[in-house]
Amino acid sequence: MVRPLRIGVAGLGTVGGGVLRLLAANGERIAQRTGRPLVVTAVCARDPSKDRGVDTSGLRWHGRAVDLVADPEVDVVCELIGGADGLALDLARTSLGAGKPLVTANKALLAIHGAELAALADRAGVPLAFEAAVAGGIPIVKSLREGLAANRVARVYGILNGTCNYILTQMRETGRDFTAVLGEAQALGYAEADPSFDIDGIDTAHKLALLAALAFGGRPRFDAIHVEGIRHVTALDIQFAAELGYRIKLLGLARMTELGLEQRVHPCMVPNAAPIAAVEGVFNGVVVDGDFVDSVVHEGRGAGAGPTASAVVADLIDIARGSRVPAFGVPATALADHRIAPIASHLGCYYIRLLVVDRPGVLADVSAVLRDHRVSIEALIQRGRNPDQPVPIVLTTHETVEAQMTGALARIAALDAVLEPPRMIRIEKL
Amino acid sequence: MVRPLRIGVAGLGTVGGGVLRLLAANGERIAQRTGRPLVVTAVCARDPSKDRGVDTSGLRWHGRAVDLVADPEVDVVCELIGGADGLALDLARTSLGAGKPLVTANKALLAIHGAELAALADRAGVPLAFEAAVAGGIPIVKSLREGLAANRVARVYGILNGTCNYILTQMRETGRDFTAVLGEAQALGYAEADPSFDIDGIDTAHKLALLAALAFGGRPRFDAIHVEGIRHVTALDIQFAAELGYRIKLLGLARMTELGLEQRVHPCMVPNAAPIAAVEGVFNGVVVDGDFVDSVVHEGRGAGAGPTASAVVADLIDIARGSRVPAFGVPATALADHRIAPIASHLGCYYIRLLVVDRPGVLADVSAVLRDHRVSIEALIQRGRNPDQPVPIVLTTHETVEAQMTGALARIAALDAVLEPPRMIRIEKL
Repeated sequence: MVRPLRIGVAGLGTVGGGVLRLLAANGERIAQRTGRPLVVTAVCARDPSKDRGVDTSGLRWHGRAVDLVADPEVDVVCELIGGADGLALDLARTSLGAGKPLVTANKALLAIHGAELAALADRAGVPLAFEAAVAGGIPIVKSLREGLAANRVARVYGILNGTCNYILTQMRETGRDFTAVLGEAQALGYAEADPSFDIDGIDTAHKLALLAALAFGGRPRFDAIHVEGIRHVTALDIQFAAELGYRIKLLGLARMTELGLEQRVHPCMVPNAAPIAAVEGVFNGVVVDGDFVDSVVHEGRGAGAGPTASAVVADLIDIARGSRVPAFGVPATALADHRIAPIASHLGCYYIRLLVVDRPGVLADVSAVLRDHRVSIEALIQRGRNPDQPVPIVLTTHETVEAQMTGALARIAALDAVLEPPRMIRIEKL
Repeated sequence: MVRPLRIGVAGLGTVGGGVLRLLAANGERIAQRTGRPLVVTAVCARDPSKDRGVDTSGLRWHGRAVDLVADPEVDVVCELIGGADGLALDLARTSLGAGKPLVTANKALLAIHGAELAALADRAGVPLAFEAAVAGGIPIVKSLREGLAANRVARVYGILNGTCNYILTQMRETGRDFTAVLGEAQALGYAEADPSFDIDGIDTAHKLALLAALAFGGRPRFDAIHVEGIRHVTALDIQFAAELGYRIKLLGLARMTELGLEQRVHPCMVPNAAPIAAVEGVFNGVVVDGDFVDSVVHEGRGAGAGPTASAVVADLIDIARGSRVPAFGVPATALADHRIAPIASHLGCYYIRLLVVDRPGVLADVSAVLRDHRVSIEALIQRGRNPDQPVPIVLTTHETVEAQMTGALARIAALDAVLEPPRMIRIEKL
């Protein structure tokens, strides 16, 4: 055995603790695989005395994360602090600037500062690795950057947030509404006390920015992602979706179109038979459509100490083995600045749910507006009769440009007989 | 741009032609990703004049595959000839012996000579890469060798043969019997004129030997795999499976047990809700159960020019990027020689179908035999009454040691009222 790879870990929360436990459990096996032991030599965490389920007595403790970089007994820095800026950004810049490889699980950091950090890494000739930042234990970063690197990717999409998928799955299985299921998820620890980061789609968007950068060889553009969360998905929508042969999933989706890179995060109706529809509960799934490979589906746990630690240590093993693949699969200087396709130009099918007064002529008015905006109806469900009372109308459309759809919906919303803002959910043909 | 990676391709059949077309289509993009162009400089194929959908006029043609190794304009050899011995083995030995990296799609070659070739590669310090040998476009070799390398793998299993999965899917969807569906598959070109390599499980076993070697860091042991094909699966079994909540799939499965490495290829009843049950038609799927990552599912096309070329070129990109991971994820000298668990010691649940004469006492006789062999019945289906005529009886068992099961079946087969050999299909709890 040769010189060990000495690791400095910043942040000993769920993930950091998991990394220490993984290396304690599987270190010997990993050393055999890698031909080189992986040893945590130094850490930085708030409370040295906390029990992390693993012996931390022999470690060098630093009060400031950046001091890990200067530590001569640290060859590679693991940033497991979190946050798009502040300590995490300082540590990443310092580490790469000093020529020390960086492994991070921090999607927010990379979604926003990814291009800058990739350039720093390339300049220093050291790896910047982030398998744990997207879809936890699923080795999707490696798949896109290496395994599928021979393909021109047409589209990449996935269920990237376990909290949202758990809520949507529970809603479908129990018929309950969003608020009730969210409350239960919070009680069970599946959702945060302040859940907006997850349920408003921000977390999914961070991950999508990284997937898109890897798939299309461009700078991560978190700022250019159209983001909608799942707060407005109702039990009624889920019920209608089932009736129409769909499930509702929060997808992050990026595809290259004639108008540029389209990146969007929003609830989607996906066909029941699509592999992504079968990804349920807290699981994540990612599908890559490549020109030669066709569709490749990956599914696994998206979060948790074990899966995330598995991903962090996979990156460390790569570094120990001397791997030198650029962070986003192309040299940072070659990262494209793709034209961004605006959401208004999105071409797709739509599910629309209206609450209208049940009286003659309403459907004619709605149909006329849709015709004026060149929106073609594919199916329409109006169930039950309840004269002069509110009834839901559901319709699905053929392919329509989003700007036409939103124009039509604004006019429909203004109709007298329409009692609440129309609900629109995009349908994705997968 | 630096010096190109110069590739010599032996064999321009489906896969070889696909590699040439892929590099023609995506070469520029790949050069940008890799920082180094990938260029096919030389080939060896029977018929230089054949149209392969790509310009081959500038290539150096060799009459003998091994001459690619001596060609000074070849940096890496692609073995796409096929076959476990003969030309392919000669080429692999010569290339690695001469210190030229080898990329191959040849599962038979590696399942049998993998340990020897890995040792040659290590000795020369050059890569031996075979992503295309298992599950076509799915980057499962990379997942096991790198992405999931931090885990102790408990089990790896998959649907590894598209022909068998197509036949079983068709049988389930149409209710027709094996022979009819096989004939149709042959007419459509989904099955070979001599289909035994696929339907008798040999192809799956070759791939399983490689997956097990990667997952458990051992020498590939094709010779130690228990192999059964799908010839004996009937429409009736598929119908009973559906009734019991299962689908029948041909799985290759390897797991580490207290008695050693268990490797088996046979038709399995898998629960409807298991992700692998949803892998249908010609698709392949592979599931890895790791101690930290839990279950990771991969699904995609298992064969065809495009997916296989995608895998071959991914290996070439790795080599161009300077990757140096040992063939089976551990140095060849450290490949374990695992104890092999005999199939007789397999512990699992079973589906048994009998054809018996419908008369009093038959069930009592069958039950007594099972009791004597300590086989505990979980469920029993006896449908319809037809005194003194043949009727099927189906039963499923609780966990049973295979030796007990086969002992019981031998005695049951000998009962007067039992009209044909009992059919047994293992049930896999996934």
